Amino acid sequence: MSRFFSRRYENLIPYVPGEQPQDKKYVKLNTNESPFPPSEKAMQYAREAAGQLELYPDPGCGRLAEAFSAGYGVGRENVVFGNGSDENLNMAFMAFCDDQRPAIFADITYGFYPVFAEVNHIPYEEIPLREDLTLCPADYMDKKGTIFLANPNAPTGIALPRREIEKLAEADPDRLLVVDEAYVDFGAESCIPLTQQYENVLVIGTFSKSRSMAGARLGYTVGSAALIRDLQTIRYSLNPYNVNRMSMAAGIGALQDQETTMERCRVIMENREYTMKELRKLGFEMTPSMTNFVFARHPEMDGGELYRKLKNRGILVRHFDLSRICQYNRITIGTRENMDALLGAVREIMEEDNEKC
Amino acid sequence: MSRFFSRRYENLIPYVPGEQPQDKKYVKLNTNESPFPPSEKAMQYAREAAGQLELYPDPGCGRLAEAFSAGYGVGRENVVFGNGSDENLNMAFMAFCDDQRPAIFADITYGFYPVFAEVNHIPYEEIPLREDLTLCPADYMDKKGTIFLANPNAPTGIALPRREIEKLAEADPDRLLVVDEAYVDFGAESCIPLTQQYENVLVIGTFSKSRSMAGARLGYTVGSAALIRDLQTIRYSLNPYNVNRMSMAAGIGALQDQETTMERCRVIMENREYTMKELRKLGFEMTPSMTNFVFARHPEMDGGELYRKLKNRGILVRHFDLSRICQYNRITIGTRENMDALLGAVREIMEEDNEKC
Repeated sequence: MSRFFSRRYENLIPYVPGEQPQDKKYVKLNTNESPFPPSEKAMQYAREAAGQLELYPDPGCGRLAEAFSAGYGVGRENVVFGNGSDENLNMAFMAFCDDQRPAIFADITYGFYPVFAEVNHIPYEEIPLREDLTLCPADYMDKKGTIFLANPNAPTGIALPRREIEKLAEADPDRLLVVDEAYVDFGAESCIPLTQQYENVLVIGTFSKSRSMAGARLGYTVGSAALIRDLQTIRYSLNPYNVNRMSMAAGIGALQDQETTMERCRVIMENREYTMKELRKLGFEMTPSMTNFVFARHPEMDGGELYRKLKNRGILVRHFDLSRICQYNRITIGTRENMDALLGAVREIMEEDNEKC
Repeated sequence: MSRFFSRRYENLIPYVPGEQPQDKKYVKLNTNESPFPPSEKAMQYAREAAGQLELYPDPGCGRLAEAFSAGYGVGRENVVFGNGSDENLNMAFMAFCDDQRPAIFADITYGFYPVFAEVNHIPYEEIPLREDLTLCPADYMDKKGTIFLANPNAPTGIALPRREIEKLAEADPDRLLVVDEAYVDFGAESCIPLTQQYENVLVIGTFSKSRSMAGARLGYTVGSAALIRDLQTIRYSLNPYNVNRMSMAAGIGALQDQETTMERCRVIMENREYTMKELRKLGFEMTPSMTNFVFARHPEMDGGELYRKLKNRGILVRHFDLSRICQYNRITIGTRENMDALLGAVREIMEEDNEKC
């Protein structure tokens, strides 16, 4: 820390993103990226936009909002875009939490939530997941503050039905509910329809996962026109040109080609079921995933050790060094070939372990 | 404002970027964009990167830092990148200002500074430019806080020599000096060399202007390794993947092709001298610009009126409705053809005005 660093942030502990090693080629199953490229249309539009880089992007994101509106059936005034959904999340923490309204979220969820709270000096309360790692809406019913709910949750992959979330919204109309749907397209129910009925529901999503655009950085927030105006106030006070021309164009292309997204999600879900079946045969226990990853532990294998042994074999998964989940690994679902590579490596590791005994 | 909006921001007045009208084709001389496309290499790399969008960008921006390091002769640990230099500026306000250290900047300068201060709840002091719109370093000598200095200044275009800024840095080693060099490549002296000698100098720059990459959003901050670590703490707490793959690739391409940048700056400076000469013939007064724009007023024409009359003729310039400078217009330097279109329109307007008299 330099002597110039503000006291405000001297205790700030930044988020640690999943490894993005540049040293060698891994089977990369650690950051929930898609194994498939985005829609051809997305790539084509992005390449075209690379020919007009000398001009600022439209800060109003008009054409992107139009394409989003057509794809999702919400008004153009009901959406705001971010430089990746992390930015959308940060703007929601800023706009809708403060000392009077703490942030409320699960103890096991997206690890960035406490960082967003800390960097904005927002008090927060972590509600423990139940023993089986499910999130029980009843635990949130009487909480005052702004609730952040990853649905499906990460890294557990478990989804709540929309109706359960609706009940939470109904229970207290003066409490805002922010639903983070980064993984919703892999089998869960989106809460975007709730934003049309409830003023206190905000939905955040990303083009990173189901649309294969992690490298483009594009996120969105959907809600009432009034909530979106609040977020625009924040956005225009931080970075009005936050979405660059190429990502904006790619987003439009992706929205115009829902078929590709749906087909790719179908393949991922198929590969997920296959992976879970095979891992179960090997004795693994998993949470019921509605995402493009599985969360797996083996009763006879240490989670951290498995992570390291897989890494030595060129397979990268994500291990969280948190007491409640340290026996688990989060494994991204890739192509069938990726998953066979993972399964093969797991089998080898188990055989080696058996030989030692 | 929704009933959920945090009290913290209820008085926040967002920044208003220059118009980006989507209605018709203007000769667009209002947001200091380059009339030229970026280096071929920048565009080519960006297009190639559009083929790998499914993977997150390198949050460490390793290859971009390497290219920057090679181009600017600073260490890789001396630079951090932003999603446009607005993000770099906001991170500097966050990291290096607080209640004990107010932000200090000119009354006439980049209009985003007070917004960054407000959004971060940082007290600030505005130091009036002198009567002739020059910034006098003596006015800052005894100030306590963190100084933000746009050099060249905007919208005046006036630059301070590096030595003047160095004196400010020397005067108080415990006071941080942030030099915003968005326009430095059009004839002014960069303060990047000072960051190697002074722990209290930070330089912020952009690829938007001289590198024709406004649409890509890429900014940089250069300083001591300790200052850069502070900024990384903030960056990793907000958006570790803030630079997307395509802009990162374009940035590498641009840095590998300094010749194109230098040649384009040369043409812009030539067109600037031509424009100033012609405007002077028409009776305009201008500040001595070291940027890709001129700041011009006419003793017999109202600034706001000229702006509107030019807009009616399809020529967009920027007018600021601030009392000290409301007689001026800021006119971006484009191609020779752009400037002839502007000059033609100005002549027409003056003739019309004469006929009315």
